[in-house]
Amino acid sequence: MRQEKMLVESWSFLDTVESNFRPLVVIELAKGTKEETIEWFTKRIMDKKANGGAQLLIKPLVTENGVENIYLVGASHLRLLLGAETVGLVKECSDNSMRTFTYSSRKTFKDFADDNHNFLTMAECQYIIKHELENLRAKDEKMIPGYPQAKLYPGKSIVRRLLTSGILVQIFPLHDREELKKLRHSWYGRVKVGYQPLDDIRCYFGETIALYFGFLEYFTFALIPMAVIGIPYYVFAWEDYDKYVMFATFNLLWSTVILEVWKRICAILTYRWGTLLMKRQFEEPRPGFHGVLGINPVTGREEPVYSSIKRQLRIYLVSLPFVCLCLYFSLYVMMIYFDLEQWALDYHKENESNFSSLMLYVPSIIYAVVIEVMNRIYRYAAEFLTSWENHRLESSYQNHLILKVLVFNFLNCFASLFYIAFVLFDMKLLRQSLATLLITSQILNQFAESLLPYWLQKRYNRRMKKRMCSQKTDMDLSLADQVNMEKEMGTYLGTFDDYLELFLQFGYVSLFSCVYPLAAVFAVLNNITEIYSDALKMCRVYKRPFAEPTANIGVWQLAFETMSVISVVTNCILIGMSPQVDALFPDSKMDLVLTVALVEHLLLAIKFIMAFVIPDKPRDIQMKLARLEFESLEALKQQVRAFQMQLHFPLIHHCLEVKDLMWFLANTKRNRSTFLFQLFFLCFHFVDRQN
Amino acid sequence: MRQEKMLVESWSFLDTVESNFRPLVVIELAKGTKEETIEWFTKRIMDKKANGGAQLLIKPLVTENGVENIYLVGASHLRLLLGAETVGLVKECSDNSMRTFTYSSRKTFKDFADDNHNFLTMAECQYIIKHELENLRAKDEKMIPGYPQAKLYPGKSIVRRLLTSGILVQIFPLHDREELKKLRHSWYGRVKVGYQPLDDIRCYFGETIALYFGFLEYFTFALIPMAVIGIPYYVFAWEDYDKYVMFATFNLLWSTVILEVWKRICAILTYRWGTLLMKRQFEEPRPGFHGVLGINPVTGREEPVYSSIKRQLRIYLVSLPFVCLCLYFSLYVMMIYFDLEQWALDYHKENESNFSSLMLYVPSIIYAVVIEVMNRIYRYAAEFLTSWENHRLESSYQNHLILKVLVFNFLNCFASLFYIAFVLFDMKLLRQSLATLLITSQILNQFAESLLPYWLQKRYNRRMKKRMCSQKTDMDLSLADQVNMEKEMGTYLGTFDDYLELFLQFGYVSLFSCVYPLAAVFAVLNNITEIYSDALKMCRVYKRPFAEPTANIGVWQLAFETMSVISVVTNCILIGMSPQVDALFPDSKMDLVLTVALVEHLLLAIKFIMAFVIPDKPRDIQMKLARLEFESLEALKQQVRAFQMQLHFPLIHHCLEVKDLMWFLANTKRNRSTFLFQLFFLCFHFVDRQN
Repeated sequence: MRQEKMLVESWSFLDTVESNFRPLVVIELAKGTKEETIEWFTKRIMDKKANGGAQLLIKPLVTENGVENIYLVGASHLRLLLGAETVGLVKECSDNSMRTFTYSSRKTFKDFADDNHNFLTMAECQYIIKHELENLRAKDEKMIPGYPQAKLYPGKSIVRRLLTSGILVQIFPLHDREELKKLRHSWYGRVKVGYQPLDDIRCYFGETIALYFGFLEYFTFALIPMAVIGIPYYVFAWEDYDKYVMFATFNLLWSTVILEVWKRICAILTYRWGTLLMKRQFEEPRPGFHGVLGINPVTGREEPVYSSIKRQLRIYLVSLPFVCLCLYFSLYVMMIYFDLEQWALDYHKENESNFSSLMLYVPSIIYAVVIEVMNRIYRYAAEFLTSWENHRLESSYQNHLILKVLVFNFLNCFASLFYIAFVLFDMKLLRQSLATLLITSQILNQFAESLLPYWLQKRYNRRMKKRMCSQKTDMDLSLADQVNMEKEMGTYLGTFDDYLELFLQFGYVSLFSCVYPLAAVFAVLNNITEIYSDALKMCRVYKRPFAEPTANIGVWQLAFETMSVISVVTNCILIGMSPQVDALFPDSKMDLVLTVALVEHLLLAIKFIMAFVIPDKPRDIQMKLARLEFESLEALKQQVRAFQMQLHFPLIHHCLEVKDLMWFLANTKRNRSTFLFQLFFLCFHFVDRQN
Repeated sequence: MRQEKMLVESWSFLDTVESNFRPLVVIELAKGTKEETIEWFTKRIMDKKANGGAQLLIKPLVTENGVENIYLVGASHLRLLLGAETVGLVKECSDNSMRTFTYSSRKTFKDFADDNHNFLTMAECQYIIKHELENLRAKDEKMIPGYPQAKLYPGKSIVRRLLTSGILVQIFPLHDREELKKLRHSWYGRVKVGYQPLDDIRCYFGETIALYFGFLEYFTFALIPMAVIGIPYYVFAWEDYDKYVMFATFNLLWSTVILEVWKRICAILTYRWGTLLMKRQFEEPRPGFHGVLGINPVTGREEPVYSSIKRQLRIYLVSLPFVCLCLYFSLYVMMIYFDLEQWALDYHKENESNFSSLMLYVPSIIYAVVIEVMNRIYRYAAEFLTSWENHRLESSYQNHLILKVLVFNFLNCFASLFYIAFVLFDMKLLRQSLATLLITSQILNQFAESLLPYWLQKRYNRRMKKRMCSQKTDMDLSLADQVNMEKEMGTYLGTFDDYLELFLQFGYVSLFSCVYPLAAVFAVLNNITEIYSDALKMCRVYKRPFAEPTANIGVWQLAFETMSVISVVTNCILIGMSPQVDALFPDSKMDLVLTVALVEHLLLAIKFIMAFVIPDKPRDIQMKLARLEFESLEALKQQVRAFQMQLHFPLIHHCLEVKDLMWFLANTKRNRSTFLFQLFFLCFHFVDRQN
C-alpha cells in the first residue's frame, strides 16, 4: 500500500493540464454515446497512473457545430519520456551507441535537452500514446458504464472492449502538415535518381512502413542486374539455350545472394532505428479474441480462454476444406481459361486479321483480371475464417492468415503457368501468358491500390473544402477541419498486401526466368512507379497509420526464400526440356535428365551453403551487439554482487546524495554502541546538505 | 571505494578455514614448482573476493612421501551457494517451477535447508569451483611470481596462464567412491531391460555427458522399428523392390521424425535439469589463444588480439589445401582398396575354396581398419591445425574442428560405398562392403575406446595397489591413494568422438538403407553394448570430467539432419537404379527417372514441412517457458516503476526491516519543517527494533 502511495506522488509531477497542449491522437466515439460513458472514459484516460489511469491529456474537439464526440489526446513532455521508457524505446547515445532509453539516464542520449521537444519523433509519441491507451485496463468495473452488455473483468483493455462493442469508432494519429509537406517533397516531390529518405519516412510513419519501402527500393536495385542482362535477350532475340542457361544460373544464385544481403541491410537499418535491440513485449490477446472467463495458465490472470482443441477443429474441419475448395475452384477457372485460349487460337486460325491476332491476348487479359478479383475476394474470406478461428495472439492470427493467402495466391497466379510449362510444353504460350499476367496484374494493382483511392479522396476533399470554406489552402486549415478531413480517409491495413504483391512479382520474375528474361525489366519499371504510387498512397490517400517498431520483414523473408528454392527446380526443368539442350544429348535422354537433376541438386546445395555461410548481420553490427550483451552481462554481475552485499547490509545506496547516510547506517548497524551517536551526526550532516 | 569496502565485509562471513573440509577438486602442479609461485597461487585462491581472490579452501595433499605438489580444493557451503548464483544455476522451486538460484531466495527452492549440504550435487559444486578458479584473474601482476616468462596482464585468467606455461599440470574433480558405486550398480551393474538412470548420470557427470547417453539411448530405441522391419528382409531373403521401396520410404520419414522428436525430448530433459533456462555466459578467450596485447573492441579491456585476416589466411591458404590433400589421399587409398578387391575376386575365381571365399572379405576388413586409422590420425592433424588457426573463442574453435573432421570422416567412410553404388552399380558388392565396414568399425571402436583402456587401467591399478598395500579394497583406499590413482587415469576429451561414431553409424544405416536393411539391426546391437562400454569407460577408465551445463546437442543436430537429407537423395537413386523398378517402366527410361526425381522432391518437401510443423518444444515446456518470460517481463516493469519512483524519492526500500525508515525519509524529504522531528522519531523506532 505504501508503495502504491509513493507511486501516486511520484507521478504527481505530471500535470494533467498543460499550457501547450499538442494533439497527437484522435479518438472518435460513436454518435450518441452516453454521457456517463464519455465521462468515465475520459476520467480513466486522465487519471493518474497510480489510480490505474493512463495519465494522458484529453480534450474534446470543438468545431463550428459544437462538440462532436471527437477527442484529441496528448501528453506532457515528461509523460512521453516516461512512456518511452515503458515501451522500451532504443535511442542513440552521445557516444553513438544505441541504448534502451531510461528517464534517469536521459542526459546521456544524443540531442536530449529538457526543452527539446523533438527528442522523441511525433511517430514515437503517437506510438507511446497508443501503447498507453491500449494498456489502460479495467480495475473492478464489471462493465462499461452505460453499456451493461459490454462486459469487463480486471485487467481487460478498456479501449479494446470499447472497440469491439462499437462505442469507439476509431483511434488514429494526426498528420503533421508541416512535416508531411517536407517529407512529400523529399520523397516524391521532385523527379530524381537516388535513394528514398528512409530515415525521414521512419520518423514519420514508423519502422514497419519504412522497412517496407526500404525492401521495395532494395529489391528494385537488386533486380536491375537481372533486367540489364535480360534486355539483350529481347533485343537480339537470342534463342541459344546456353545463353539462357547462363541467365538462369545467374538468376538463381543472384536471388539467393540478394535475399541474404537483404538480411544484412535490414540489420543495419533496424540497428540505426533502434528496433533491432528492442525487447519483445509480452503479447496480449488480440482485440477480437473471445472466450469464457478462465485462468490463463501463463499469466495466472483471469481472462477469456478458448479451448485449443476447438480451434484445431475449426482449422482442420472448416478452414482446410474451404481452402482446398477454393484451390479447386481456382484450377477450374484455369481450365476455362485454357478453353478460351483454344477458342481464340481457333478463331485466329479461321479468320486471320489484325483483330484476331489481338484477340489472342484477350483470354490472358481476362484471366489476369479474374485472378486479381479472385485473389481479392479470397483475401476477405481468409480474413473472416482466420478471425473465426479465434486465435489468441495477433502473431498466430497473422501466421495463419499469411499461410492461407500465400498458398491460394501462389496457386491462383502460377498454376496456369505451371500447366502450360509442364503439361502443355508450350514455351511460346508460356512466354505470352507470363507477360500478359505480369503486366496486367501490375497495372491493375497500381490502379486499384493507389490511383483510384487517390482520385476518390481528392474528389471528396475538394467537395469537403468547398462545403467548408473554399478560400482556404491546405496549410490554413484549422485543426477541426484537419481532423474532420482525416477521419474520413481510408485506413491503411498494413504492409501485407504490398509485400504480397512483391512476392508474386518475385515469382513471375524467378520461376520462369529462363523463358522470359524480360520479366525483370517489367518488374523494375513497375517497382519504380510503385515506389511513387505507394508513397502517394501513404501521404495522401490514407489516414496516418500508427508506427509499429519492427526488426525485420518477418515471415516474408521465409516466403521469398521458399520461392527462390522452388524457382531452382522449375528453371532446371525448363532448361532440361528445351530443344537446344535436348540436342546436346542426342543419344541418351537418360543422360540429359540425370545431368539436369545433378545440376539442380548442385544449385540447391550451393544455395543452402551460401545461406549458411553469409552472416545475417554485418561484422560491425555483430560487434556492437556483442558489446551491448557484454555490458548487460557485466551489469547483471554487478547487480548480483550488490545483492550479495545486501544480505548482510540491508540498505543499498543507489543515489549519490544520500550515499553518506547509507554508508553510516550500514556500518553502524552491528556496532550498536556507537549507533545513536552516529545517527545524530548523520542528522546534522543531512540537514546541512538540505540547507 | 566504499562499495569495495562493504564487499569485503560481506564476504568475510565466509571463513577460509572450515572444520569439515570436503575435497572436491585436485590441482596438480609441476614437479619443482618454485615455492614463491605456490605461495602466491594458494594465497590468491584463498584470498577474499573483495581482494580479487576466489575465496576457496585449499590444502596440500599429504602422503607418506610428504607433500607432492598436489593440492585439494574445496569451499564452504555458503561459498558454494553464492557461487551457484554467480554461475546462474537453475534449480527446482518448491512449486515445481524451475528458477535461477539466488541466495536471497534460497528458501523457496525445493529441498533447500541450511544444513542440507546435498542441495547442490557434487558435480555442480565442482563446476562452481572450476568456474571460480578459471575466473581468478590477475590484478596488477605483470608475470607469475618466479616465472618471468609467464606474462600476466590485468584480467588474464591465472589458471589458464599457469596451464599454458606448464606450471599447472592438471585440474580435475575427484570421484565420489560411494556415489560412483551406486551409480555403477544402477547403470550397468545388473543386466536389465529399461532406461538408464539419466538423472543420476546427470548428477554425477553433468548435463553434457548425460545428454549424450540420453541421445544414445533414444537413438537406439528409435532404430528398433527399423531393425524389426529390416529382419524379415534378411530372413526371407526378400528381393521384391516394392518392399524395399516401402522400407526406404519408411526409413526416410522415420529419420526425420526421430530427429524432430529428439529436440522435444532434449527440451524436456534439459528443462528438468535447469540448463534450458540457463543464461549463456559471456565467452572468454580460450586458453590456447595468443596474440599481441590490444584493446578488445567488445569489452574495452586490454587483452591479446589476433588479426582476423591472418586467421582467414591460415584457414584458406593452409588448412583448406591440407584438408583437400587429405581428401585426395583418402580417395587414393580407396582406389587401392578396389584393386585389392579385384585381386581377391580373381584369386577366388582361380582357386575356389573355403579359404578363397573367406579371402573375399579380407580387403574390406583391411580397408575398414585403414579407414579407422586414417580417421584417428586425421583427427590429430585437424586438432593441431585448428589450434594453430588461433581462434579466439572455444565455440569458433569447435565449429572449425567439427567441420574439418566431419567432411573428412564422411568422405573417408562413405566414398567407397558411393563409388560402388553409383559408378560400379554393383549392389551385391555394396551390401557386402557396407556390412564389413559397419561391423568392423563397430568392433574396432568398442575395442579401442573402452575395452583396451579399461584393461590397461585395470592392470595399472592392480600394480599400484600391490605396490601400496595389497590388503586394501577399493573402499578402504585413503584419500591420498585415491588421488594418486585418479591422477594417472586418462582424461576424457569430451563427447565429440562418441557423437561422431553415432553420426557415422547413422550414415551407414540411412544412406543405403534400401540395399541393406540389416544395418539397423547391427546398429541396435552395437548401441546396446555401446551404452555399457561407454558407461564403463566413464566410470572406470577415465578421470571424472568436469560437469558442463548444456541445453542441446548443438551442431550434431544439424549434422544428423544434413545426413538425413543426403540419405533421401541416395536412397531415391538406389531405388531408381534397381532392376525391379526398372522393369516397371519397360518403355521409357525417361519416365523412370522423372518419377524418381518427382518422388525425391516430394520426400524432401515432406521432410522440410515436417521439420517446420513439429514444434521443437512440447506444449507444456512452451507454457512453462512463456510463464517464466511473462514473470521476468513483469518484474522488469516493476523495476522500471520502482526506478521512476526513485527519480523523486532517492531512497528505495528493498528490505523489510528498514522499510519504515525508508518511508519516513522518503516522505519527509520535501517537508523540511517536520524533518528533524521525524528523524528523531525514526531513531527511537529503529533503536526499539534493534533491542
